[in-house]
Amino acid sequence: MEAVILAIELIGTFAFAVSGATAAVKARLDIFGTIVLGATTAVGGGVMRDVLLGITPPVMFIKPIYVLIAFITSLAVFLLEYFHAATRPMRSVLYIRVINYFDAVGLSVFIISGCNSAISVGYFDNAFLVLFLGTLTGIGGGMLRDILICKIPNVLRKKVYAIAALAGAAVYYIMLYIGSDEIASMICGMAVVFLLRMFAFHFEWDLPRIPEDDKSV
Amino acid sequence: MEAVILAIELIGTFAFAVSGATAAVKARLDIFGTIVLGATTAVGGGVMRDVLLGITPPVMFIKPIYVLIAFITSLAVFLLEYFHAATRPMRSVLYIRVINYFDAVGLSVFIISGCNSAISVGYFDNAFLVLFLGTLTGIGGGMLRDILICKIPNVLRKKVYAIAALAGAAVYYIMLYIGSDEIASMICGMAVVFLLRMFAFHFEWDLPRIPEDDKSV
Amino acid sequence: MEAVILAIELIGTFAFAVSGATAAVKARLDIFGTIVLGATTAVGGGVMRDVLLGITPPVMFIKPIYVLIAFITSLAVFLLEYFHAATRPMRSVLYIRVINYFDAVGLSVFIISGCNSAISVGYFDNAFLVLFLGTLTGIGGGMLRDILICKIPNVLRKKVYAIAALAGAAVYYIMLYIGSDEIASMICGMAVVFLLRMFAFHFEWDLPRIPEDDKSV
Repeated sequence: MEAVILAIELIGTFAFAVSGATAAVKARLDIFGTIVLGATTAVGGGVMRDVLLGITPPVMFIKPIYVLIAFITSLAVFLLEYFHAATRPMRSVLYIRVINYFDAVGLSVFIISGCNSAISVGYFDNAFLVLFLGTLTGIGGGMLRDILICKIPNVLRKKVYAIAALAGAAVYYIMLYIGSDEIASMICGMAVVFLLRMFAFHFEWDLPRIPEDDKSV
Repeated sequence: MEAVILAIELIGTFAFAVSGATAAVKARLDIFGTIVLGATTAVGGGVMRDVLLGITPPVMFIKPIYVLIAFITSLAVFLLEYFHAATRPMRSVLYIRVINYFDAVGLSVFIISGCNSAISVGYFDNAFLVLFLGTLTGIGGGMLRDILICKIPNVLRKKVYAIAALAGAAVYYIMLYIGSDEIASMICGMAVVFLLRMFAFHFEWDLPRIPEDDKSV
Repeated sequence: MEAVILAIELIGTFAFAVSGATAAVKARLDIFGTIVLGATTAVGGGVMRDVLLGITPPVMFIKPIYVLIAFITSLAVFLLEYFHAATRPMRSVLYIRVINYFDAVGLSVFIISGCNSAISVGYFDNAFLVLFLGTLTGIGGGMLRDILICKIPNVLRKKVYAIAALAGAAVYYIMLYIGSDEIASMICGMAVVFLLRMFAFHFEWDLPRIPEDDKSV
């Protein structure tokens, strides 16, 4: 089971690093900036969670495998884009779709592992804290990515992203709370995040917001 | 006394959440983003203070009433703006003035409670730390709000805001230091913040800065 | 030796504060904002390092000399710019060059002191953590400066800055690791940072990035 979780976490790290490095290349960061942005996207949520929980130094320093994966991934994205003849196929619909699946897998697993961090330091009774930190672990890296390239964080504006995260965290927590099997709870929580993200992506779900062209606001 | 402080803190939370949610709607965040920005504005300063003091998890997780108030307030702001016929009256001068009063009340009380947090973990002898963290508690949430919507923080540019905060913190600290009654010190500190803000608002006080049209800089 | 380190750290604090305050004036912050930005640039990297290491409150509160130097420096920059007749000479090539030397000195010494902080709380065996936090101490303040004025952090885009920082940290760490004299290690680490920065500045070295006018990305 541990190996499965680790494998999925590494897939998530990979997907998050791709998203960060791709955004970095678009913002014309250099090779160093691309690696920093990829790694920040991948591990930033976990670092914020650890700081808020008082876990110092954060887990990223103790288990450098995540940063290493993010580093290699971001470097590869940069090099592919830099020698750009090779990258045009990467802009295909298939590529975007695959990355999106990976991102949904990563989001699912980071949310569960975020909840588990909060629970493992003794806050199982504080549902608000567990759900908040689980969600932050999933979405925090992407928020930092956007802030660093001076964009309003996507998660505050687009699609059903944070809500999917929160819903999955809630399902996981409630199942644990009523005494379900831990593995079953994990699978259900992750499935909720993954499916909500997939539905939101395919059906282009958006949360309500005031249209850009409504000038009265 | 405690009940009075709590009541004023809740008014401040409400006012800060209104300011965050209003900014969110203007930046076209969705309903989730609006709630996040409202809550961040309301509790962000306190979270930064707690992290710097090593109080983990931050108070917002232990006393969720503040986040709850911010959540409800932000949701209400979003819904009023979304069904916008109802909101035009809210853009009136009266509305802006009332929110501004509330904001000044909130700033006053958060500064005092920020100073108290620093004092309560044993740093009364470090005046710099107490004043810094008191001020940060008051202005930090608004800074995060502006960063998240990609604006230069207002407090760095406009009006006598941070200086009012700092002055109130200083009055409170000095009065405690010379042995004044705690409640009297609180009232004086809060009054200084509130009055400076009101004067700055009514007389349009600004701190010196180099004019936009001075191109030689 | 301690006195030498302190003197160099104060020169670095001065240079970083000048860079922050100059950016603040250009972004039309007011006098308060200029001081905040100067101080943030000077001590922000150290604060992030301390929070990640669990050193609370951060060193800036315990040794306020750094903030004091940053405060005075930023105030002086603002006043010189405000009464701007006096400042035109400051825009000379000489001025920029001198500040750049100072900045390189500051970067050198902050990186070594960042590594030392990590080592002194017991993480000598974790090379990744030491190098990461050493580099962050050097570049973190400048990143915060840019984020606060809504610019993409320069260090992610321009010149050989972070790489110089990382290289110096690595030299210092490796020399300590193989048992070199501490002072010799410091001098070598600092020299690497300083020289790389000087070369990058004079020869306009840049890391690879995708050109602005390549619209295919």
